[in-house]
Amino acid sequence: MFIAMNTLDKIIERIKPLDSTAMEQAVQRQDRLTKPRGSLGALEGLSIRIAGITAEPVPRLKHKAILTMAADHGVTAQGVSLYPAEVTRQMVLNFLAGGAAINVLSRMIGARVIIVDMGVRGGLPAIDGITCKMIDFGTKDMSTGPAMTREQAMDCLVAGTEIVEQEIKAGLDILGTGDMGIGNTTSASAITAVVTGQMVSEITGRGTGIDDAQLAHKIRIIEQSLTVNKPDPADAMDVLAKVGGFEIGGLAGAMLAAAANHIPDMIASHLSAEKGHAACLRHLGLEPLLNLNLRLGEGTGAALGIFLAESSVNLLREMSTFSEAGVSDIQ
Amino acid sequence: MFIAMNTLDKIIERIKPLDSTAMEQAVQRQDRLTKPRGSLGALEGLSIRIAGITAEPVPRLKHKAILTMAADHGVTAQGVSLYPAEVTRQMVLNFLAGGAAINVLSRMIGARVIIVDMGVRGGLPAIDGITCKMIDFGTKDMSTGPAMTREQAMDCLVAGTEIVEQEIKAGLDILGTGDMGIGNTTSASAITAVVTGQMVSEITGRGTGIDDAQLAHKIRIIEQSLTVNKPDPADAMDVLAKVGGFEIGGLAGAMLAAAANHIPDMIASHLSAEKGHAACLRHLGLEPLLNLNLRLGEGTGAALGIFLAESSVNLLREMSTFSEAGVSDIQ
Repeated sequence: MFIAMNTLDKIIERIKPLDSTAMEQAVQRQDRLTKPRGSLGALEGLSIRIAGITAEPVPRLKHKAILTMAADHGVTAQGVSLYPAEVTRQMVLNFLAGGAAINVLSRMIGARVIIVDMGVRGGLPAIDGITCKMIDFGTKDMSTGPAMTREQAMDCLVAGTEIVEQEIKAGLDILGTGDMGIGNTTSASAITAVVTGQMVSEITGRGTGIDDAQLAHKIRIIEQSLTVNKPDPADAMDVLAKVGGFEIGGLAGAMLAAAANHIPDMIASHLSAEKGHAACLRHLGLEPLLNLNLRLGEGTGAALGIFLAESSVNLLREMSTFSEAGVSDIQ
Repeated sequence: MFIAMNTLDKIIERIKPLDSTAMEQAVQRQDRLTKPRGSLGALEGLSIRIAGITAEPVPRLKHKAILTMAADHGVTAQGVSLYPAEVTRQMVLNFLAGGAAINVLSRMIGARVIIVDMGVRGGLPAIDGITCKMIDFGTKDMSTGPAMTREQAMDCLVAGTEIVEQEIKAGLDILGTGDMGIGNTTSASAITAVVTGQMVSEITGRGTGIDDAQLAHKIRIIEQSLTVNKPDPADAMDVLAKVGGFEIGGLAGAMLAAAANHIPDMIASHLSAEKGHAACLRHLGLEPLLNLNLRLGEGTGAALGIFLAESSVNLLREMSTFSEAGVSDIQ
């Protein structure tokens, strides 16, 4: 646990603010490109933000990856989802066969899919294409006690950082994150309630598509989980341990490592139809690029967002300036 | 003129409602794919709509093209734009050199760009890569009389249909449309006011980025154009002739030919920051997919929309069903 803490501290220390010099140069270049100033709207802002994250005035997003982490949730014993828990395992095998939505969208954008088993019930075969970072065969039922130990929470984060550090060696310019885990909107809603301070009923959604009675039950289970565990909003590791999930912790670690390595990934690609997402984005001060009523997970929204991110930097890099193209500027 | 009318009538006769059988089959397939039902949100609806347009239950959008038509506007003599009129011609040469935003985004989605000279002031060299359908060296000043004759308006539409019929021979599964013409938001706003019945001041925007005083002037010029010409809202050809543009007429013809040939193109890819666009979409009953504050033209919004359209049909075609993947459905 001491080693894990040390690893995380070192990564967090490396996270720096956006590079203002690169951003200023990107702004200046945007204003010389052959278009009315500002006419590329949110795509201009996005390219400038990516310049700031990467510390490159004219970034290139060649190596793209979607990191999809899977794990099971003990709270599914309380009947919070439409689908049986074995779907987590079955869907991981579907990812591997290339038949899931995230596979299709990753092919569209030329991204590789990194599939990580963070703790799928029943285990998964040791085969190429699945990276095993298994913490346990699913979390414990958070409605009766903590989902995991504090040590396991730390291990999730470290696993996420290890995956990203490994992928950087293979080339990584932008990272999309996604999850697979039956029951994980129950855990995500619990975390959202704790972190934003909003009422559970205000931020809990229908997940895979439950009806009104099932939603009321899901809300009660989340409220019970918070009452039983009393997670401390000021201690993120406590929140993750008590009401989180292995894949959620793994993705948090991956985001820290991406940030430490100037790799864009905390861009809000879309606003999910899942109710709590708007509260999360508001809390983080992020504006979503897309609003397509998606609520699938896996990283599907991220894949679409990566297309926009790559579009924005390709526009910045590949468009001619007024003087290069011999186009008259404002009269 | 009689021949032109006959050509158009024949094309309009071929336009059929959406194919309900193909749509029903697409709906059924969406519901068997390995995801919670409805969880792909607007992308599910989009794939079903494209099934209806193409009359294919599982459409494929392999051959993609952006049709960018260029022409000049006599009304620029009244100082309605930030940019000098010669920018239209300069930008066409920029399209040809591959340095404009539409070139970058078309490369992103693997679409070809079809550049058509519908009537650029000063003319353009007879070179590969520009299709000449020149009606005249720009329209007349609509603030003092009709922008073009009724015969020219008809010729614009026929030219648009000819381009699409020609491109179909090269392979065409989806068409995005765009325009280049300094002064054309002035013309577009006039058309929008006539067709929607809204006040000019309610639907006129800042185009390339004019200030408040310039906007007030632009509104006065449009109001004057409507007073001088009295276009008949019930006669689309009259509206096009009196306050339209050659590229606008050409695109209208292209849309008719696309519709007649089951080629998707009247999908609202985005909501422009240009004020009148929302009124147009409302009038047409179309929901935009994106809202990125774009106001560039050229077909840039369409290129992003084509990415979403192709994503939607690839999801429909390439995702595994529950039974194919051995994934358990709702318990």
